[in-house]
Amino acid sequence: MKKIIGILGGMGPAATVDAMDKIVKNTPANRDQQHIPVIAVSFPDIPDRTTSIVSGGESPLNQMLAALKILEAAGAQCIIMPCNTAHYWYDELKSSTKTNFLNMIDITCHKIISEGINNVAILATTGTIKAGLYQAKLEKENIHCVVPDDTQQHYIMESILAYKSGDEERAYRLIKSVIDQLNHAGVAKFIMGCTEIPVILRREDNRDRYIDATEELVKCAVEWCCLDLNCI
Amino acid sequence: MKKIIGILGGMGPAATVDAMDKIVKNTPANRDQQHIPVIAVSFPDIPDRTTSIVSGGESPLNQMLAALKILEAAGAQCIIMPCNTAHYWYDELKSSTKTNFLNMIDITCHKIISEGINNVAILATTGTIKAGLYQAKLEKENIHCVVPDDTQQHYIMESILAYKSGDEERAYRLIKSVIDQLNHAGVAKFIMGCTEIPVILRREDNRDRYIDATEELVKCAVEWCCLDLNCI
Repeated sequence: MKKIIGILGGMGPAATVDAMDKIVKNTPANRDQQHIPVIAVSFPDIPDRTTSIVSGGESPLNQMLAALKILEAAGAQCIIMPCNTAHYWYDELKSSTKTNFLNMIDITCHKIISEGINNVAILATTGTIKAGLYQAKLEKENIHCVVPDDTQQHYIMESILAYKSGDEERAYRLIKSVIDQLNHAGVAKFIMGCTEIPVILRREDNRDRYIDATEELVKCAVEWCCLDLNCI
Repeated sequence: MKKIIGILGGMGPAATVDAMDKIVKNTPANRDQQHIPVIAVSFPDIPDRTTSIVSGGESPLNQMLAALKILEAAGAQCIIMPCNTAHYWYDELKSSTKTNFLNMIDITCHKIISEGINNVAILATTGTIKAGLYQAKLEKENIHCVVPDDTQQHYIMESILAYKSGDEERAYRLIKSVIDQLNHAGVAKFIMGCTEIPVILRREDNRDRYIDATEELVKCAVEWCCLDLNCI
């Protein structure tokens, strides 16, 4: 059997489904038995990450640690956590386990840096933006990040919350208006830096415009499991 | 926290993703924390179910039991197995656990019987058809099942295998030709009795024509977890 990917998920549940779907689609396979084994722990009641970072709400760390222990006990060999904001607690999670635990933010930044992408806008939760998860890594490499202004950020967060509440149409409209604004202002590339965003923007044709953090994370995990390669 | 759904999956992996997606879509929720916790064990290297039933190939039972033990240890409280053919081993799996384990075939037949649906065609793997999983239960209730003839069944199985091999277009074409034939012969309702089939037929508009076994199973699990209801 190939190595087992463990998904520390539920943040949100649709993003976990999207990550699993991308594992299947990124695995070269002609039949079931060639696919990668996956154990997903999707616990959507993990406290809200943005609320914790921005307003000092309940920390999600203990519940993320509990999910991580379940994955370890079940035999996961490569952990992924398809939630950008949750990477605020990555170091604490990583230091609690001996299992390989991929870092979505590092992997996405690595792609941006290695491809020489510049002038890139960050589409993410207010928690991810306020914590500077992407800015810190990209600016160190002299990559200019465009951070949405407060009004734009409000619309992006509203879009993510609208999707989580089941209103796909409103979610799409809200984020699309910000993307169009930034695009008219000269931004050509966008980091899908919240795992709900590739789901909200599923209908978009212009895929080259986006760097999908979920897709980058999954590709790295698939390479590691299939080929024993470290992609970062 | 709501009760945890455990998915004994990987048969195939895309069908497991479809079941998880349907859990999210069938749960009334306005934010992450209102969704149902899910633990999915997607082990695609479980031996092929149809080969075991039809040609006496390696039994998948031991590996299914191992996956079930992982789900139990991880805390799953309601097990679902989104693979119709795997229900050939349902009684053995069920008798090995004290956890609530829903039966997809029973739930789907219950819907057909309770809604008075008759003259219904079974779209399923050759393993499910040869084992008579649907026929036995429906004919006992005097419901006329249309079983595809050998040529039609060959096309259906080829369609399922084409999808598993990554050829979505061929998969769609093959199964659609059989559905059209049966429809012209007077069949109005079709059981999607293999969990790959709702994925293969995702683009179909005419949803009323189909009874989707995955959807019925998931709705029942969601009711059980949210409302403490037994739907069958």
